[in-house]
Amino acid sequence: MKQKIALAIHGGAGTILKSKMTAALEKAYKEALRLSLQKGYDVLTAGGTSLDAVETAVRELEDCPLYNAGKGAVFTADGRNEMDASIMSGKDLAAGAIAGVTCLKNPVTAARAVMEKSDHVMLIGSGAEAFARLHGIEMVAPDYYFTRERWEALLKIREEDPDRTDLDHGSSKSYRKKKKEEKFGTVGAVALDREGNLAAATSTGGMTNKKWGRVGDSPVIGAGTYANRLCAVSCTGWGEYFLRLCVAKTVADLMEYKGYSLLRAANEAILKKLPEIGGDGGLVAVDAQGAVALPFNTEGMYRGYVKNNGKIVVDIYA
Amino acid sequence: MKQKIALAIHGGAGTILKSKMTAALEKAYKEALRLSLQKGYDVLTAGGTSLDAVETAVRELEDCPLYNAGKGAVFTADGRNEMDASIMSGKDLAAGAIAGVTCLKNPVTAARAVMEKSDHVMLIGSGAEAFARLHGIEMVAPDYYFTRERWEALLKIREEDPDRTDLDHGSSKSYRKKKKEEKFGTVGAVALDREGNLAAATSTGGMTNKKWGRVGDSPVIGAGTYANRLCAVSCTGWGEYFLRLCVAKTVADLMEYKGYSLLRAANEAILKKLPEIGGDGGLVAVDAQGAVALPFNTEGMYRGYVKNNGKIVVDIYA
Repeated sequence: MKQKIALAIHGGAGTILKSKMTAALEKAYKEALRLSLQKGYDVLTAGGTSLDAVETAVRELEDCPLYNAGKGAVFTADGRNEMDASIMSGKDLAAGAIAGVTCLKNPVTAARAVMEKSDHVMLIGSGAEAFARLHGIEMVAPDYYFTRERWEALLKIREEDPDRTDLDHGSSKSYRKKKKEEKFGTVGAVALDREGNLAAATSTGGMTNKKWGRVGDSPVIGAGTYANRLCAVSCTGWGEYFLRLCVAKTVADLMEYKGYSLLRAANEAILKKLPEIGGDGGLVAVDAQGAVALPFNTEGMYRGYVKNNGKIVVDIYA
Repeated sequence: MKQKIALAIHGGAGTILKSKMTAALEKAYKEALRLSLQKGYDVLTAGGTSLDAVETAVRELEDCPLYNAGKGAVFTADGRNEMDASIMSGKDLAAGAIAGVTCLKNPVTAARAVMEKSDHVMLIGSGAEAFARLHGIEMVAPDYYFTRERWEALLKIREEDPDRTDLDHGSSKSYRKKKKEEKFGTVGAVALDREGNLAAATSTGGMTNKKWGRVGDSPVIGAGTYANRLCAVSCTGWGEYFLRLCVAKTVADLMEYKGYSLLRAANEAILKKLPEIGGDGGLVAVDAQGAVALPFNTEGMYRGYVKNNGKIVVDIYA
């Protein structure tokens, strides 16, 4: 019997208004998802590991200026780009994460180096960058991340609310409204390889106009990323809510402790637990039998998957 | 009926060799635990919240030079002190965390400010410090953290292995041996208040000679700290393993999804799951009925608890 393989990816969830989308832009977004899936699928069909597949798929999205990770990272309040990423191997629970890095071309590859070349799980800031440099991770100058669209997004927020110092003076309500208007930007991938091993990876440029070294769920094992022998999960959405629920670990635990199927566990987390506390977003997940789940409670989520037959499926809206 | 209250604390777990402990030192360690418990207990008996109680208890340990948090924080490889902390409210899953901060007298109070005065959960590095400064959190100069004992611990590691650049060149095995010889330093508290609300907090100075902006489980919601309506958990030990297992959330999920008692869930996490992947450490936990659990799989864990009767129990060894 041919072993099952599967790969699922996301490029962020949120208020992706159809009315603001052009046909050309939608095509470009989908094309990038297809390319990511094709490259990850090629790894799997060649007998590569799920870790290689998710890293490859995420790198492709990090290199695409359309998605909020790597090249397309949004700007912080002080006009910089601060990125976070994580990766996890389900076979042995090995994990690596970096947060608050500013000069790495592919943050997910640095996260993998943390996992494989250190005994640590999480490195942050300039220390993480020094570690990555030592291990030959590709560095870029800050202007690598400059994209007109992201820069204008920052200027727009500044113009709309010049006094806005993010969260310290505004009410949660007004902040919530602001946030809802912005796209939640994250990319991620989950995979099952021919050996039956699962892996997950997530990468993000964070929030436009973010301050205070804010970190969301993407680099946090258990929140934005988790993988074990049962499933692999990568989340996207309003990070603070994913952190408070430990969404990725919740999916794994619902399967392990309640015997839920992947789909039921993923739906419980995203369609029930997350909205209960006011959170928005989605996730992609795959289980050890090759089932995939891609639930979201937002208007859309850039997403796609591919299984043994090689048919690439991508979509944006519900 | 009088509502139940409970408070449990820890001051780190690990290889606390009885042979290296003097009577005077043991007394001092225990006295600090007693003081922390008494101050937290006073908050609870006065009708204060579990959040106030855990913050108070942790601040007390942060101010004590004996424990590896706040004042007693260990030194990084470059001779600095980098601290992490987190706090969580079980009632509403509100949470706050800071990582990699160097100038805050009480990191746990900064974590609480993140929870209450921002819409974020996790802030890191200089951004977190700027946020804390803006909100009036007490700042200190770097020499505040200087203690002869911690400095000599750094010098000793450097002397034993001057070329040791931590994890990048050494094998895991040699690293593991090194690590086992060091005390895992973390402080934490969990509490149940008269309203029936649970809270947890954890604070740490990290590892002696740490590099690369390493972050352990202490500031990670779900790994080192978790609280919901069922339980509150604060962990201590070899952080990387707690991160990979999401130990604190695992305890909560074993209770919620498998119906385990607090004690059974805590024991399953620390005495079964953690050693299975080679991890060392312990945790303190309290449930909504006021039961406490303080399991550890190391030679000792600085720990204690107090319940309604006000009897303070502290211990170090098994």
